[in-house]
Amino acid sequence: MSIDVSRTGSQRHVADIFNSAVAAWAIGAAWEVGALDELRQSGKLDAQEFAARHGLDGPSTEGLFRALAAVRVVERDGSTVTVAAAFDDVYRNRAFVHWLSRGSAELFRQMPSILRTENRTGRFYQRDAAAIAYACRELDALCYAPTFWAAMERARPTGLVVDLGCGSGGRLLDVLRRYPGTSGLGVDIARPSLDVAERDAAAAGLADRLRFVEGDVLRLEPRPEFAEVEVITCFMMGHDFWPRDRCLATLSRLREVFPAARRFILGDATRTSGIPDTELPVFTLGFELGHDLMGIRIPTIPEWQSVFAASQWRLLRTNRIEMTVGEVVFELA
Amino acid sequence: MSIDVSRTGSQRHVADIFNSAVAAWAIGAAWEVGALDELRQSGKLDAQEFAARHGLDGPSTEGLFRALAAVRVVERDGSTVTVAAAFDDVYRNRAFVHWLSRGSAELFRQMPSILRTENRTGRFYQRDAAAIAYACRELDALCYAPTFWAAMERARPTGLVVDLGCGSGGRLLDVLRRYPGTSGLGVDIARPSLDVAERDAAAAGLADRLRFVEGDVLRLEPRPEFAEVEVITCFMMGHDFWPRDRCLATLSRLREVFPAARRFILGDATRTSGIPDTELPVFTLGFELGHDLMGIRIPTIPEWQSVFAASQWRLLRTNRIEMTVGEVVFELA
Repeated sequence: MSIDVSRTGSQRHVADIFNSAVAAWAIGAAWEVGALDELRQSGKLDAQEFAARHGLDGPSTEGLFRALAAVRVVERDGSTVTVAAAFDDVYRNRAFVHWLSRGSAELFRQMPSILRTENRTGRFYQRDAAAIAYACRELDALCYAPTFWAAMERARPTGLVVDLGCGSGGRLLDVLRRYPGTSGLGVDIARPSLDVAERDAAAAGLADRLRFVEGDVLRLEPRPEFAEVEVITCFMMGHDFWPRDRCLATLSRLREVFPAARRFILGDATRTSGIPDTELPVFTLGFELGHDLMGIRIPTIPEWQSVFAASQWRLLRTNRIEMTVGEVVFELA
Repeated sequence: MSIDVSRTGSQRHVADIFNSAVAAWAIGAAWEVGALDELRQSGKLDAQEFAARHGLDGPSTEGLFRALAAVRVVERDGSTVTVAAAFDDVYRNRAFVHWLSRGSAELFRQMPSILRTENRTGRFYQRDAAAIAYACRELDALCYAPTFWAAMERARPTGLVVDLGCGSGGRLLDVLRRYPGTSGLGVDIARPSLDVAERDAAAAGLADRLRFVEGDVLRLEPRPEFAEVEVITCFMMGHDFWPRDRCLATLSRLREVFPAARRFILGDATRTSGIPDTELPVFTLGFELGHDLMGIRIPTIPEWQSVFAASQWRLLRTNRIEMTVGEVVFELA
């Protein structure tokens, strides 16, 4: 190149914005094709050998690692790729990046159209539900797992546990493994996730203790098996209960549909406040703008506490995690 | 927030990657809804007033400006939005960012699938042709215009000028305005772009001097009007002529299809080399990885010069622009 590409700091800054956007897609892809895990284990790999071993296109694979190198996740020397300064943090946060670049890209891409009030009716946005489920399994482990298990220890489940919005059923499998006396029931609106869940339950040898029901958590009807539920869990979907009136109605309906439930463990993101724009941590900006675009107003912790007070549920404990998007686990009875 | 969001520099770096990816979408959207131009003119705006005046959703519009503020394009104080340090460079480079975030997002999003050799057949990727055309009008003006007009001055067109890959016809309109004796012919594969082109030509009062033909530049057949063409222009599509054998065949066919052409002005990106991964300027990384993903190997300047030497065209002059993706304008006779 005959020009000085870093003419000014500000021109470098625009290039960094552009290259970071490319790198966000590369991070999601590098996770899915196994490159992040291999780099985590070995510290280095050969791009051409990696491409051949995984049946990947050579030039595209070199380009993938070049994108990671542009933001200092790796360094390249010929086709040798070595972990660099940002690798560990990117590895730990890859699910947030994947949520954005793989699961939610079409939502953000369509921003000019979605911004217009006249377009905000019907199915006015698209996301990739399978990709979001892929990221959410790791987000769940990263953000909620320790607090969830502490709450479960206090709940001491011995019978039937229902997981609302169970996705591919990972949480229920873990519950059944940890508490031998329990059985599980998963409810989700997405048939493809339930197909994965049933396959995984069979593979784990837990199919006899676990059932799945396709249904909308916001519109559940009583069923015989629901009457036996002892503990309700619900993670990363509570914000869909809102606005307030619908949230109150949903909490009331859950009380009726699960009359024997003695504990309800509800974990979700809540709206943050007061973070300066230039200090927003990973995830917050994308999560909150994404939900604004979808027309879903994420509630605050006080807003949740106020609906619990007005419902038949009694708030036992508020566990604030607040890792990045105001994560919290409520324990209700 | 109860945690220190900038715990370590590296954690801040991951957040910057994430927030830059969100901001890339916000920059494309802010351009399309008119916010960048209004900020350029006035230096500030009120987000709520702007949303109301343009019929935009309030919370989403606030979120859009928050995303711009996260990467220092603007600053926010309540709903007052003011240009910040990176504004001018982002404004000047907005078409590159838009090419990536609006036009090419689905290509990059599908990277895990597109990387696999077994998936790389048929129509294995998608882009938004209309969005790419939107960005390319400005990219053309930004990257090629001065060099193009200097080459046209040397060509001194007096008769029929054909623009191959004319898109929505902006270049031909400009040519006809600048050279009153000329007439124009636009060839493009995309019917929607030609519809825009015909409408714009009529609105400009130039419809009687301008015609458009739907056709694939790589497979043109002779037509009576082609026989009269005096000057050929072709911008930002020459890389589609490649690989080498196809490029030679295309150059030969253009010689036959336009027998009276005495000048061929060909402007395009070429493959860069030797830029360190962490110093890649805006566009290069996305443009080159995007074409690798699509299976299009961008040629180098020496590769072009070698096919010209083997063709019936004589290279008069190589104008190296090399702003960001090795832009060059060849003048052929």
